[in-house]
Amino acid sequence: MASSSSTSSSSSSSREGDGSSYIECFKYSRRATLWSVVGRPDGGAGLAGERAVVGGWVRSSAVVRARRASGPTSPSRKPEVETTGLTCTEVLMTRVPLIRCIARLMAGGISAAASGGSARRPSVGTALVRINDGSCVADLQIVVDSSLCPLDQVTATGACVLVEGKIEQVEGTAPQHVVQMKVEKILHIGPVDSEKYPLPNAHLSSDLVRGYPHLAARTAAVASTARVRSEMIHAVHAFFQSNGFFHVNTPIITTTSAGNRSKMFRLIRIFSKSDNDSRITPEAVRAAIKEKTKQVEALKRSESNKEALQAAEQDLQRANALSRQLEQGGSTESSPDDFFHCPAYLTPGHTLHLETYACALSSVYTFSTAFQAESLDSDRSLAERWTVDVELAFAELEDAISCTEDCVKSLCSTVSKDCSDELKFLSSSQAGDTTNSRVESAVSSPWQRIKYTEAVNTLLQVTDKTFESKLELGMPLSHEHLSYLADDLYKKPVVIYEYPKQLKPFYARLKEDLKTVSTFDLVVPKVGIVACGAQKEERMDNLTSRIEESGLQIEKLEWYLDTRRHGTVKHSGFSIDMERLILFVTGLKDVRDVIPFYRTKGHAKC
Amino acid sequence: MASSSSTSSSSSSSREGDGSSYIECFKYSRRATLWSVVGRPDGGAGLAGERAVVGGWVRSSAVVRARRASGPTSPSRKPEVETTGLTCTEVLMTRVPLIRCIARLMAGGISAAASGGSARRPSVGTALVRINDGSCVADLQIVVDSSLCPLDQVTATGACVLVEGKIEQVEGTAPQHVVQMKVEKILHIGPVDSEKYPLPNAHLSSDLVRGYPHLAARTAAVASTARVRSEMIHAVHAFFQSNGFFHVNTPIITTTSAGNRSKMFRLIRIFSKSDNDSRITPEAVRAAIKEKTKQVEALKRSESNKEALQAAEQDLQRANALSRQLEQGGSTESSPDDFFHCPAYLTPGHTLHLETYACALSSVYTFSTAFQAESLDSDRSLAERWTVDVELAFAELEDAISCTEDCVKSLCSTVSKDCSDELKFLSSSQAGDTTNSRVESAVSSPWQRIKYTEAVNTLLQVTDKTFESKLELGMPLSHEHLSYLADDLYKKPVVIYEYPKQLKPFYARLKEDLKTVSTFDLVVPKVGIVACGAQKEERMDNLTSRIEESGLQIEKLEWYLDTRRHGTVKHSGFSIDMERLILFVTGLKDVRDVIPFYRTKGHAKC
Repeated sequence: MASSSSTSSSSSSSREGDGSSYIECFKYSRRATLWSVVGRPDGGAGLAGERAVVGGWVRSSAVVRARRASGPTSPSRKPEVETTGLTCTEVLMTRVPLIRCIARLMAGGISAAASGGSARRPSVGTALVRINDGSCVADLQIVVDSSLCPLDQVTATGACVLVEGKIEQVEGTAPQHVVQMKVEKILHIGPVDSEKYPLPNAHLSSDLVRGYPHLAARTAAVASTARVRSEMIHAVHAFFQSNGFFHVNTPIITTTSAGNRSKMFRLIRIFSKSDNDSRITPEAVRAAIKEKTKQVEALKRSESNKEALQAAEQDLQRANALSRQLEQGGSTESSPDDFFHCPAYLTPGHTLHLETYACALSSVYTFSTAFQAESLDSDRSLAERWTVDVELAFAELEDAISCTEDCVKSLCSTVSKDCSDELKFLSSSQAGDTTNSRVESAVSSPWQRIKYTEAVNTLLQVTDKTFESKLELGMPLSHEHLSYLADDLYKKPVVIYEYPKQLKPFYARLKEDLKTVSTFDLVVPKVGIVACGAQKEERMDNLTSRIEESGLQIEKLEWYLDTRRHGTVKHSGFSIDMERLILFVTGLKDVRDVIPFYRTKGHAKC
Repeated sequence: MASSSSTSSSSSSSREGDGSSYIECFKYSRRATLWSVVGRPDGGAGLAGERAVVGGWVRSSAVVRARRASGPTSPSRKPEVETTGLTCTEVLMTRVPLIRCIARLMAGGISAAASGGSARRPSVGTALVRINDGSCVADLQIVVDSSLCPLDQVTATGACVLVEGKIEQVEGTAPQHVVQMKVEKILHIGPVDSEKYPLPNAHLSSDLVRGYPHLAARTAAVASTARVRSEMIHAVHAFFQSNGFFHVNTPIITTTSAGNRSKMFRLIRIFSKSDNDSRITPEAVRAAIKEKTKQVEALKRSESNKEALQAAEQDLQRANALSRQLEQGGSTESSPDDFFHCPAYLTPGHTLHLETYACALSSVYTFSTAFQAESLDSDRSLAERWTVDVELAFAELEDAISCTEDCVKSLCSTVSKDCSDELKFLSSSQAGDTTNSRVESAVSSPWQRIKYTEAVNTLLQVTDKTFESKLELGMPLSHEHLSYLADDLYKKPVVIYEYPKQLKPFYARLKEDLKTVSTFDLVVPKVGIVACGAQKEERMDNLTSRIEESGLQIEKLEWYLDTRRHGTVKHSGFSIDMERLILFVTGLKDVRDVIPFYRTKGHAKC
């Protein structure tokens, strides 16, 4: 993939493939990646005549029936052709000479997809098989003669092949697929029963593909999205490292439940008699109880260490509770917090923990997962989201906003540059897609910045459109409001800042008017809010009163307040929603399609 | 930090600071990082006479009592000095001219730490304050005259200051701290009450510091470790990106509980009446029930869609259950799996999910968190660990081993190079530390590779040492065995491969002898196992029988088996334990000290 090479140190030069006439073998498996063959700027032309081992999964195939067993491989002789797994998109993407056959075939009225399955396959002839190993968008066509293996084994979509052969130039001057491989030796076949394979061709609905997240990456669309996502992640780390930020691994498990606990996942540990873990049999626990009782008595005799005694007694109580639960059928769900000795949850966000490190290392970020057990109705908001969280000490709101703008622009331009093939492919599968120009202008031109009050007043004066949701000062902006601003009015990313305090979290810094707080949301066209940030309240008094106003349990936040009690500092931060930003650059519509294994209410496959 | 500059694109040149005579202001806050001043190769000498704004937290301080109010700042005039927060290590690390004062002071028999607190501070004089902003190991000494502010505000360890002043050369030729700042203006002070600050000086036990993970990064040791960790993470992504791997975000939440469920955390969702979430009041649920009932009846009338009817009925049942729970005091702990409609857990590892993407994109990795509710006794194994997981399609065991070796060597050499100051500092705080030479030889020399059987036979013939734990062929190697091999016998990293199948997971590939499997462990001196890997079983029959042998529920793994059912391929992978690898490069002893917020049995602060 281009991106790999661009940053590659040792191997880059050889992976550029800009005309060098040998095929580099992938370092950690004895085969050449398709990227090092058809991914080259010259489409592989410079490799014609070279031998190589390549592997991949079958995307589509066609069989040229032979008049002679060693039948013709050049389609120009008007052979009879049967195809499977072909998609118009794929054909458009990869203009192989085979197109002429397909065109004729389509004209003949036979649906390509319909001919999936191996039953009607001829036993002799030549298979033209398009394989892909996920290293780039382009497939490689391999030509397999029926003398090498039963053709139906290598033609079924989804089958895995590892083959050795010779690269040869093919007619046609398409920028991609100027070469194919004449197979001389088959090293491995991972067969597929076409009747049973759930993703038999590329005419698949997103819903169907989503049902098989563990196989979905074999489709061109999901593979392209995965490469874009990977490149985006690399760009995140590149941006922050080159700007002197430190990556901090804030925890996934937290004991801080300051927010709405009904939106948090709580952790429990399960003891089940079916589990073959000797440590947690009732016998083991009884033994433990005996020992702990001895400890307590010993500590009682030597009245020296009160704390140790208390701890030991609590320990004993827990052990007794545990033993009771085991007797009652082996579940500790009645005491969920047994493991950490206090309730533990999945973190809904990383801001609070990251702030503590910003108040020591100054400029920090983390790329990690945030969790929310979202509302009963929603099935689109992810329960497990990836976010980039950033905190800057000695920084004010404007600093956070400009850092967000630089960061998002840098991510978008890197991905546009290094994943151009992927974005082209994804765009081609969405009719009339204008994502590319949207992203380009978002990167090149300055963004709109307006205060919340301006935004509301502007929207209240809108005459050419009526909004379903009510709006007045002090109310949140709904999705249709945001989309009007970004899509219709400004037609570019919009930063809305200075919100009424009741709309934002307790840690946002209160402004002099005592009504608004120093926060911002970044709204991008077609997607909505992709990032939000705030200058944090560094003044102890304001912070505590905001916590009380918000009806939160202040004792859960004592550790957080310590950063204000001791050596407090002005600091600001923001959080970027990775899935939504990937929607923006790819033009895809559903967050469930830009994460490998999506988790939403009622859905958590694998 | 050196590492930042090394990969920095635009800003790198200016951040190198190799003698340029202006101070670069950090892009996203209006101050210069200490790294851009004292972090320069010339220690800042080239900046003498420059003005700058710098900020940071007070590490230590000394007050020079004035005979005149505008007292002398040069220690050479034998002034009376009081110091706080100083540590021998710090003094050794940063040989400021102040040393002479300290030396005299120590001779005077007054403990530096003891003099913490502001009570005895003189009101007039000059404070020599060593501040650090986390951007590098070196502190900057700022000179504050009592005419600018009450000195006790800027001298308390932990206090935050933002000051403007002039860089001036100081006497002495130490490589670090050739400059200090004469403060002219104080822009911000975040005060500290020395009586209450929990980390008042640098003479602190690890146990004490661990108790305050949210403040710990203000100590030199934890800050250095955090920068090493950050650099290690950047090195991970750099290595895999430059070798053409794709980063895949495998899920944290999984519904696959094939392993020992008693070691997994299970997720529940809590409804509590205290939560002000209108959606989940009993009223709301009753309303939902009414509506769902209507749906069900409607679907029953039109007998068209059986599936939709079933779904609606299940939905209704869940709603009824929920309403019952709410009536019974607002907890759903009795039905933990309400959110995903099936039991959900925190993933114990990423291998299985990552394999599915390797069987499509060929070369993938992920840097993510793995969870285990570890045994009752252990308080050292982390419940939340960070791991690098890698999967390679078309690859065999040897490929995985050499990829592991290249990766670990690359990470170690990058960190040694870019974090030399941090490693020097951490090493200096451990008497007779030899980490550096260990890491160097691990990077430069080839590693030892032995089969499990060789390892056992070697250990059985050991005469110069008696092992506590019993050992014979087929038994696992204990920590003392591994440490004998890596520390005493080979004195280098050791790869032990081909284990008996009963010692390894079901997915390890069975060898021809039907007894051993293609797996390996990487053992490094002083730490133990830092990585393990395996060639995965790609043959459907072997895999299913191994699953049955292991007593696992095969129905939980149907999705995983799909990758073998359809287009199976030889593939291998490995997993690196980040915390243990950081122990190896830093020479630290406790995993709890190399992760920002550690989670172990009974401990989950913040």
